[in-house]
Amino acid sequence: MGGTGERVGDLGEFGLIARLIRGLPQAPAVALGPGDDAAVVAAPDGRVVATADLLVEGRHFRRDWSGPADIGHKAAAQNLADVVAMGARPTALLVGLALPPETPAAWVEELYAGLAAECAAAGASIVGGDVVGADAVTLAITALGDLGGAPPLTRSGARPGDVVAVRGALGCSAAGLALLERGASGPAELLAAHRRPRPPYAAGAEARAAGATALIDVSDGLVRDLGHVAAASGVRVEIDTAALPVPAVLGADGVRHVLTGGEDHGFAAAFPPGRVPAAWTAVGRVAAGAGVLVDGRPYEGGGWDHFPRRPR
Amino acid sequence: MGGTGERVGDLGEFGLIARLIRGLPQAPAVALGPGDDAAVVAAPDGRVVATADLLVEGRHFRRDWSGPADIGHKAAAQNLADVVAMGARPTALLVGLALPPETPAAWVEELYAGLAAECAAAGASIVGGDVVGADAVTLAITALGDLGGAPPLTRSGARPGDVVAVRGALGCSAAGLALLERGASGPAELLAAHRRPRPPYAAGAEARAAGATALIDVSDGLVRDLGHVAAASGVRVEIDTAALPVPAVLGADGVRHVLTGGEDHGFAAAFPPGRVPAAWTAVGRVAAGAGVLVDGRPYEGGGWDHFPRRPR
Repeated sequence: MGGTGERVGDLGEFGLIARLIRGLPQAPAVALGPGDDAAVVAAPDGRVVATADLLVEGRHFRRDWSGPADIGHKAAAQNLADVVAMGARPTALLVGLALPPETPAAWVEELYAGLAAECAAAGASIVGGDVVGADAVTLAITALGDLGGAPPLTRSGARPGDVVAVRGALGCSAAGLALLERGASGPAELLAAHRRPRPPYAAGAEARAAGATALIDVSDGLVRDLGHVAAASGVRVEIDTAALPVPAVLGADGVRHVLTGGEDHGFAAAFPPGRVPAAWTAVGRVAAGAGVLVDGRPYEGGGWDHFPRRPR
Repeated sequence: MGGTGERVGDLGEFGLIARLIRGLPQAPAVALGPGDDAAVVAAPDGRVVATADLLVEGRHFRRDWSGPADIGHKAAAQNLADVVAMGARPTALLVGLALPPETPAAWVEELYAGLAAECAAAGASIVGGDVVGADAVTLAITALGDLGGAPPLTRSGARPGDVVAVRGALGCSAAGLALLERGASGPAELLAAHRRPRPPYAAGAEARAAGATALIDVSDGLVRDLGHVAAASGVRVEIDTAALPVPAVLGADGVRHVLTGGEDHGFAAAFPPGRVPAAWTAVGRVAAGAGVLVDGRPYEGGGWDHFPRRPR
């Protein structure tokens, strides 16, 4: 990267932006990329899918635990996964960066390279954004997508009798975070899963092709996110722990991490019986009722809340 | 508002989001509003205009200088104005909020009410977003819009011989900020201009109807923003200070504030000769060359940079 000890405060807002957007690849869907008041992105479906997330240093990432490219990959991935969770194809990302003026310019360039590479992996382009000064590094990511003429796959269509299935890693990111919090150094695959999750972006198209009735990105934890599906669909979701895909590397805490860990950005869906695609794993069923049961009982193991309720 | 001393940390992420999105009006363009992994917004043009900004407490607003509704209005306005500056009609806003857990819930509800009211004034709806914990209040706003079948109005189409014209207030927000920084209490209209700018949202449609060749939102200051037009179009822009609309209330510093003040979110455009719409004020011309001349000379009065270059 170009930095030779330069800080973002040395470059100025316009100098930094010019450096970041230089050479950004632009997919054919981008009618007008960075550099004007706004971008223009193709929305051939006549509708656009849009989602936005904030990531704050010290809460969503730590610069001593993750490199800048990792942070960029992860920030893009969690937003691109939300677009895929609607059954849509990601098209574009807008990137807002709040940066302390003393942040090394090379760190920001590597962050941006990670964002751009993750976008490319999902078929999307960075089309715009903003850079401002702040005391803490904060990323504000917006992802856009196209539904290709199909109805959106929401959380609200699950019906009693459907099969519940999952796709992609579950629990590995949470296990990696637990290792980092304890100061432990391995297993490397868990640390990597926390630093740079790999959402299976094909999941949206697979779910749509198989006639899924509901689809969600597992970002708050499997039990919690299936709770969102249960509430939105007016149904009960039943999970069988014996059916869960629990990687051996997770060890004794494996089931708990798979039920509560969210940041792998795998997917959960409901399918009509007999329609679960090959790459998915059936883990339970939809029934009449409310809430989520794990092996027939309510689960009290929790999940992720950005503002945990305080005891009073 | 509902707050009775509650803090956002008491409500939890999901409780706060549920309260904020309750009763949000949704315009017909919103196919799917808040509550799923992503929103779905109509893009009848087959393209979508998208822009994003970050606003950080202490840098872009102060809670002791502006009320929460003001901050919401202003954050929405600056993004909606960027959509209008492409000649587009705003359709939707995504709102990311980073909040200290001790922030009063009522403060956030009033902020959100301001965002929603400004959206409504521009014909758009809040369709989604995110809420996370942080040490400083930060707003991450994304605005979307529709071009209605027309080409985007960019910064790059100005041609020698065009007339340069402006629309909306210029300089009043900067003068209001200067008053607040000095601890002065009036004139009230300048303080109001800083706290709650009123972009003339009709400017985009007016400029398009009149065949404007370039359009920009004045956010960094008139000289600086016309500098962006000059650079993107490969032309020189010449401003006549005698033609500038300088409100009497600006007093002795009026011309400087009009040339350098940005946050009123007025608009500047280039029009073919004889095509300046009635609501606009001609302030200069486009010529062959480069840069911006004010009364025939380069202007050294500056403008807004979020990372001012440090002396070395």
